[in-house]
Amino acid sequence: MLAVKNWQLLSLDEKKLCLSRPAPIANQRVVVNQIIEQVKLFGDNALLEFSQKFDGITLKTLQVSEEKIKAARIKPEALVAMQNAIATITQYQQSQLPESKTLSTAPGIRITTVYRPIQRVGLYTAGGNKTPLISSLLMIAIPAQIAGCPIKVLCTPPDPSGEINPNLLVAARLCGIETIYTVGGAQAIAAMAYGTETIPKVDKLFGPGNSYVNEAKTIVSCDPQGAAIDLPAGPSEVMVVADEQADPAFIAADLLAQAEHGVDSQVILLCNSEGMADLVNQEIGKQMQNLSRKNCIEKSLLISRIIVCPDRTEQIAIINNYAPEHLIINCIDAANWVDKINAVGTIFLGAWAAEAMGDYVTGSSHVLPTNGYAKNCSGLSTLDYLTCFNVQTIDKEGLRALGPSAITLAQLEGLDAHAQAVQLRLNTMEN
Amino acid sequence: MLAVKNWQLLSLDEKKLCLSRPAPIANQRVVVNQIIEQVKLFGDNALLEFSQKFDGITLKTLQVSEEKIKAARIKPEALVAMQNAIATITQYQQSQLPESKTLSTAPGIRITTVYRPIQRVGLYTAGGNKTPLISSLLMIAIPAQIAGCPIKVLCTPPDPSGEINPNLLVAARLCGIETIYTVGGAQAIAAMAYGTETIPKVDKLFGPGNSYVNEAKTIVSCDPQGAAIDLPAGPSEVMVVADEQADPAFIAADLLAQAEHGVDSQVILLCNSEGMADLVNQEIGKQMQNLSRKNCIEKSLLISRIIVCPDRTEQIAIINNYAPEHLIINCIDAANWVDKINAVGTIFLGAWAAEAMGDYVTGSSHVLPTNGYAKNCSGLSTLDYLTCFNVQTIDKEGLRALGPSAITLAQLEGLDAHAQAVQLRLNTMEN
Repeated sequence: MLAVKNWQLLSLDEKKLCLSRPAPIANQRVVVNQIIEQVKLFGDNALLEFSQKFDGITLKTLQVSEEKIKAARIKPEALVAMQNAIATITQYQQSQLPESKTLSTAPGIRITTVYRPIQRVGLYTAGGNKTPLISSLLMIAIPAQIAGCPIKVLCTPPDPSGEINPNLLVAARLCGIETIYTVGGAQAIAAMAYGTETIPKVDKLFGPGNSYVNEAKTIVSCDPQGAAIDLPAGPSEVMVVADEQADPAFIAADLLAQAEHGVDSQVILLCNSEGMADLVNQEIGKQMQNLSRKNCIEKSLLISRIIVCPDRTEQIAIINNYAPEHLIINCIDAANWVDKINAVGTIFLGAWAAEAMGDYVTGSSHVLPTNGYAKNCSGLSTLDYLTCFNVQTIDKEGLRALGPSAITLAQLEGLDAHAQAVQLRLNTMEN
Repeated sequence: MLAVKNWQLLSLDEKKLCLSRPAPIANQRVVVNQIIEQVKLFGDNALLEFSQKFDGITLKTLQVSEEKIKAARIKPEALVAMQNAIATITQYQQSQLPESKTLSTAPGIRITTVYRPIQRVGLYTAGGNKTPLISSLLMIAIPAQIAGCPIKVLCTPPDPSGEINPNLLVAARLCGIETIYTVGGAQAIAAMAYGTETIPKVDKLFGPGNSYVNEAKTIVSCDPQGAAIDLPAGPSEVMVVADEQADPAFIAADLLAQAEHGVDSQVILLCNSEGMADLVNQEIGKQMQNLSRKNCIEKSLLISRIIVCPDRTEQIAIINNYAPEHLIINCIDAANWVDKINAVGTIFLGAWAAEAMGDYVTGSSHVLPTNGYAKNCSGLSTLDYLTCFNVQTIDKEGLRALGPSAITLAQLEGLDAHAQAVQLRLNTMEN
């Protein structure tokens, strides 16, 4: 059962609390820093020791052999499902490819914006045995291939027998990933950020993980010797806004789907009446009985809630303030809401738009800003696998036209060597 | 005089050292963390105390009054120079505005990518009295205005009399910035990231500063309660590659222009012969005599060098490995180099393309990745002031076509509540 809060009866502090995320694990940064230091100091040996310590596995090698990747076999329906997902994700990510363009901002001055694939990318996929996150791998590997990143490596934790789930191996193969390491956790992030004897250093890291992985990504992204990251990540979350026409069974199903991600996944329903809140709570009770991750769901429901607030303006303010990773608008006029929303990871419109469809098969990225980061970050796209730089051409005409302005500004800034670099050229032209 | 290194005679370790950046200031993170904590705890009072402590100024108020901004008067040629710069920067940044688009990845599935301005942006401009970085303010303020960010605030340190340079005030006014605070340093970053009684909390911070400011930006960007940042920043730097036709005077002028930025600014010349290296060193000696920032330049030249390497392939490898913020290609076939370069902040092509032109007036952004970050980051553009999210519409046809694939993938991942959210809808459709 979700706690029901009547928004308009809450104090300011209670409203703030109502939209707060669960607190992060205390002291996690210290632990993760230690893991990173060990990997920097001892390389592969540290990785093997952490596999023993955290996963209880004695690995002989870190890299999955080419033969193993090739030999992986999966069920035909799994292959079809993957291929369907790959087809839509590829279409979407290709549509995000930018085009080089040239602009003349003044006579004699041309600026050409060019794009380059990031040379070395490191992909992380959580999983192990229980939940091999095949879809996450597709989401981060396909844009790497479309961007044309020449070096792509994947780290993913082994299952209890030291192996990688064959579905993951096939997914990697279908996305052109040939280099796979059986390493998970914060140590995998450290290995790719700094390199070890076996694992190459990369320029940028992609893919969400558990809170230790996410913390490790944050830490290495602050170190110029480390690696950049796709986006900061917290637990996955959903906000559903529903009006009176919405089917309480659909709402409950969407909330439960999100809640099964982890005990720290927060789900929030925004609805107009306590009557609807009760109906949804009843449905949750019914539907969760036979779910395999019921224990996890029960915990995540404890940090979740239903907010009753019949005022549309306030509902919009709540959404923009919370800035949910996923927003489902299960309202009769769903499309009308979009223009007013400015901070959200992605939006699902209408009764049929189950978030689970977006997690797997619509083609849109499911690697999205969580934890309020939708206020300043966007979901993953091919652009994140590219860098862009401007090539600036300035000929004599351009120098003559704008050189004097550059000199004036340089002098105002007290930078006379800047002025001199322009003046010297102007003098040379005149002679 | 710059040290001259013959690349092909260097050992691997010497090569690595030759392309290394100056070490960051030790213990800086600890100091900056303390400043941030003080601002979080004591708000405005901490800011006033730090102004006293670091700038030696007793401020009565933090915000610059509307009257003061309006009353600022500057020389006519300064105004013209600013207007010229604003015209080109505006053209360039407008050309980077993305367009919303809709894609149907499968029948019954539509993905619309929409863009929103980041709601609250904080701008930082270094300066004080000596070097009011007018151009940096233009570079970060114009795209904020083009993106349409509704809340824009500027922090910049006061001069010794507690005032802001009138050129900065006019530049701010011309860019539509109406809220200006006389606060600089790490404390300004903390104030905008967390908010104080006077300064509003923002969602994202823009603008390079000194190493304390840059460190503060890194720290607050790792805190979900903090703020995102434009890009990680280190000292400004340049690499010049020059062939035998290049004018040693131009090369020297460009190196000196970069060296005057700060004692930690590194400049590297890549050339084909020791003869050219000598000519450039002679020119540096001559040209630096009358420069006002000679003391600063002398220090920065100590951490700089000339690399003699006549092999084009190796030169390209050096460029991509160093990943300079600014690259000047002063070669007869400059345009031919571009295709091979993959990690650089921006490129200036040919003899007339002084970097100082790009710093002020070409319209291209001068807020660029330093410290090797060009391997995974791009220069600032309007895109950095926007977030983007996808609106996903899925109708019955889409659900029928791809729902079964979503269910299969959810089951492979062990997420049966995900499968249930789709199955429930499929069942409802059939009834």
